[in-house]
Amino acid sequence: MARKSKEEIAAIYRRMQDYICDQIAAADGQGNFEEDAWDRAEGGGGRTRIFQNGAILEKAGIAFSAVHGPTPKKILEKLGLKEADFFATGVSIVIHPKSPMVPIIHMNIRYFEMENGTHWFGGGIDLTPHYIVPEDARFFHQKLKDVCDHYDPNYYKKFKEWADDYFFIKHRNETRGIGGIFYDRLEGQSDEHFESILEFSLALGRLFPDVYSHFMKQNSTIDFGENEKSWQNLRRGRYVEFNLVWDAGTKFGLDTNGRTESILMSMPPVANWEYMHQVQENSPEHFTQTHLKKGIDWINFATND
Amino acid sequence: MARKSKEEIAAIYRRMQDYICDQIAAADGQGNFEEDAWDRAEGGGGRTRIFQNGAILEKAGIAFSAVHGPTPKKILEKLGLKEADFFATGVSIVIHPKSPMVPIIHMNIRYFEMENGTHWFGGGIDLTPHYIVPEDARFFHQKLKDVCDHYDPNYYKKFKEWADDYFFIKHRNETRGIGGIFYDRLEGQSDEHFESILEFSLALGRLFPDVYSHFMKQNSTIDFGENEKSWQNLRRGRYVEFNLVWDAGTKFGLDTNGRTESILMSMPPVANWEYMHQVQENSPEHFTQTHLKKGIDWINFATND
Repeated sequence: MARKSKEEIAAIYRRMQDYICDQIAAADGQGNFEEDAWDRAEGGGGRTRIFQNGAILEKAGIAFSAVHGPTPKKILEKLGLKEADFFATGVSIVIHPKSPMVPIIHMNIRYFEMENGTHWFGGGIDLTPHYIVPEDARFFHQKLKDVCDHYDPNYYKKFKEWADDYFFIKHRNETRGIGGIFYDRLEGQSDEHFESILEFSLALGRLFPDVYSHFMKQNSTIDFGENEKSWQNLRRGRYVEFNLVWDAGTKFGLDTNGRTESILMSMPPVANWEYMHQVQENSPEHFTQTHLKKGIDWINFATND
Repeated sequence: MARKSKEEIAAIYRRMQDYICDQIAAADGQGNFEEDAWDRAEGGGGRTRIFQNGAILEKAGIAFSAVHGPTPKKILEKLGLKEADFFATGVSIVIHPKSPMVPIIHMNIRYFEMENGTHWFGGGIDLTPHYIVPEDARFFHQKLKDVCDHYDPNYYKKFKEWADDYFFIKHRNETRGIGGIFYDRLEGQSDEHFESILEFSLALGRLFPDVYSHFMKQNSTIDFGENEKSWQNLRRGRYVEFNLVWDAGTKFGLDTNGRTESILMSMPPVANWEYMHQVQENSPEHFTQTHLKKGIDWINFATND
């Protein structure tokens, strides 16, 4: 079995974008995606789809791109390579729901290939609840573990730790949310292994709408008021801080003249900042703030943790 | 005449913070500063003062700090030095007014000294109107030029260009606002020159409340509605993008374990993002967006520019 070409992978990822958009739009039941098809001057392009004014979702960005051309200097330096062409394709998602009781979610699956044959897969899914609810966190991590375990018994532990380290707001000494999984530079030692990693990324793509429509359905019925909306806007401020200060993908895109509007589709519609905001002791906000930590085993989380 | 010591400069800058706070609070007439005095584990500390809920100002941060200790590795690498202690003192200001017709303003004056004697002054003032008004821009730049010219006939031209380059949102290909002046690494070739640079920074500190209270008084009486508030929130989003992605001071502070709440006092209370926002042709928003460019000579700006 020969491994798939980069063009075949791009076509599969493009269909994955269609699939996820259909599922998410159906779960919302209102609102619709608007598509911007764009070309990249140096080669390739993408389809950025933005969903606004839904019943449950305030803003969802689900983007596909397949770009190629001379490799940006920053990557060449990192790899210690001289001038060479690259190809990169992937699907990126960030969803900001209306209700503070529904979590923010992010997913990315991507494939990168250099002219000299160097190639790898990367990606991840992570959940950022405005309010951390252990049962939701357990559900989310168990679903990720089930998919991981199907492909490699070592994936979940390794990729969960990687997500804890990656989705970390260093200057706040807090994680972005409850983490999830993150992986990068998976190249595949054989054709079979390569195909298995590709299949793993597709399984994550299929898992995404299943998991998120669960939260859309279940959590959008929970009551909330002004206090919860204020907290949501402060948490969205932290989401902005992570993405603009620490997210390697965002930094790389902005540094290398990427398509700004597509990169920054991850921004929330609204974000607030308040100097020295203090949460009340024993409040749900306090529970959330004290559980934005690395290394929590959410699957086996006990309520007295 | 011996030049002033770092302790004397810190004391002078501390008094400058008091002076500016008094002037700004008086110009607003309502609301007041709350002070957080903080210590830095490695040495020194600061006084961060936040003004909220004023008549004209929504959030003003006016901070003084004087810190010392082992030089952060990032600076040592840049200077090609081995381990050494540093001392840094300065006043930093960012003001977000309530009305979209009043501009956002930023000022910083600072002094840095290394154990080995290396030392320099840096600083700047720049204005970010939500709506660019040529007459306001001319007033602002003329005031800066007058102060610059008093100390060195070359300052204004040089520091104005430096501000255009520094306060630039590269991924948007637009300036943050109408610029102002920016300078760095001014060390002073003689004791007299050193004192002259210190005096120049103090003249900027005294200019700051004069200039900004002019805009507070004049522009806060201009009518506005929902449209202008929406635009203000989008422009505040760009302010966040500049500060978190490009501002060297912010990046350095967050990278080197600075006091996060003091560094991010520059964040607006609210910011919005809207995918692919389009301004109307011939609108004031359009005029603003098309004049967020480097190299505009605001002092001699003609209305058909």
